[in-house]
Amino acid sequence: MRNLKLTVEYDGKRYLGWQRLGDSEKTIQGKIEKVIQQLTGETIEIIGSGRTDAGAHAKGQVANFKTTSTLSEDEFLTLFNRYLPDDIVVKEVVEVPERFHARYNAKGKQYSYYVWNDVVPTAFERYHSFQVVEPLDLAKMEAACEKLVGTHDFLGFSALKKSKKSTERRIDEITITQEGSMLHFTFVGNGFLYKMVRILMGTLIEIGAGRLPLAVIDQVLANKIRSEAGETAPAQGLFLDEVYY
Amino acid sequence: MRNLKLTVEYDGKRYLGWQRLGDSEKTIQGKIEKVIQQLTGETIEIIGSGRTDAGAHAKGQVANFKTTSTLSEDEFLTLFNRYLPDDIVVKEVVEVPERFHARYNAKGKQYSYYVWNDVVPTAFERYHSFQVVEPLDLAKMEAACEKLVGTHDFLGFSALKKSKKSTERRIDEITITQEGSMLHFTFVGNGFLYKMVRILMGTLIEIGAGRLPLAVIDQVLANKIRSEAGETAPAQGLFLDEVYY
Repeated sequence: MRNLKLTVEYDGKRYLGWQRLGDSEKTIQGKIEKVIQQLTGETIEIIGSGRTDAGAHAKGQVANFKTTSTLSEDEFLTLFNRYLPDDIVVKEVVEVPERFHARYNAKGKQYSYYVWNDVVPTAFERYHSFQVVEPLDLAKMEAACEKLVGTHDFLGFSALKKSKKSTERRIDEITITQEGSMLHFTFVGNGFLYKMVRILMGTLIEIGAGRLPLAVIDQVLANKIRSEAGETAPAQGLFLDEVYY
Repeated sequence: MRNLKLTVEYDGKRYLGWQRLGDSEKTIQGKIEKVIQQLTGETIEIIGSGRTDAGAHAKGQVANFKTTSTLSEDEFLTLFNRYLPDDIVVKEVVEVPERFHARYNAKGKQYSYYVWNDVVPTAFERYHSFQVVEPLDLAKMEAACEKLVGTHDFLGFSALKKSKKSTERRIDEITITQEGSMLHFTFVGNGFLYKMVRILMGTLIEIGAGRLPLAVIDQVLANKIRSEAGETAPAQGLFLDEVYY
């Protein structure tokens, strides 16, 4: 058995997210598994580094699968991109040791979130960013980011109900860069809870717009009450950039 | 009568181009005129700086129209973006002197063309660039650009049949910049003939790929024979960036 690692880019607009549901037609995992079946005759479950939400995007999702196929890495790369829909691109196929597991071995991830901060909309980035018309105070948002960096229990910034597993995560870095009306946020950490980046973003936006005080960060990190954080920012602004191993 | 100048951005993928055809549903001009009619009750023809091809895009198309409406510039801006489809954005509305004419007064234009130069496709820029899988020799393409700059009869690089009007145009600058797999070409000049940028791009690509010699530029500028230049590059990579007045 060979173990193949894929790096996958996708425009998530048309999809219900990464993870295959009963009907395989509307998920990225389902689309890739269908092509693998066409190419190899094998019915294989591919393992992603984690789920991505309906409508969210990826520039560097990682997955692996085991196959007896003798197709080369380059042949797989070419055939994936020939048969996948044009909003899903396999960027790299590499054979890895049998023990490699895209989810268990992931040591960290980088996500991006794009905010179009202008009263005038954007024709080109309309499905890849979230428009906020109110002026945002970047200095306040940066101060909020500083409070988030470090190891904390992020349960209050997630869509999880109480969890038996640990909800402690480490955020290594959050950056904000501006190019014209586009604000680009990046989040690097050892792992992110369900909807955590979108809820952090929704909270940062409400702090930047002056609708929530900076102190809400410390408060929710301490009391873990989801309803005291900001709204969940829409999935269309979210990108999984990279998975670290 | 007030004369209003619009700056318009559009993702041309769904449209038959700028210019209204019999059926107004599939052109950018038609969409804007329909909204003006809704807002003012007036049936008005708007004047664009020039046509753009079916499937081509704009970041800064300019148009003007005359109206008796008393709506303010800001009200027009807000209402355009409320009622236009989300792939057409009015970026600016300014009242201008009555004599301003978006086409006759245009002194020059800037176009961009994006080439995705990689065997692996792009999920995000797939409708806003043209994929070329062969390696391209940038130095050769830059040498070709140098030959194009200046005042020449560009008839051989256009889709015009013989023309009564002058087909002489001045190209002031062509730049090529690279970011990862994306090549970004800009063309600045006092005017461009029908399909001229796309035919220049098709020719530059064939020179870069080694399928046409550098000398084809001088040859077609001299003999004006369209069939000796390169193919017409697809409209999906073309953007009208700016119109100069």
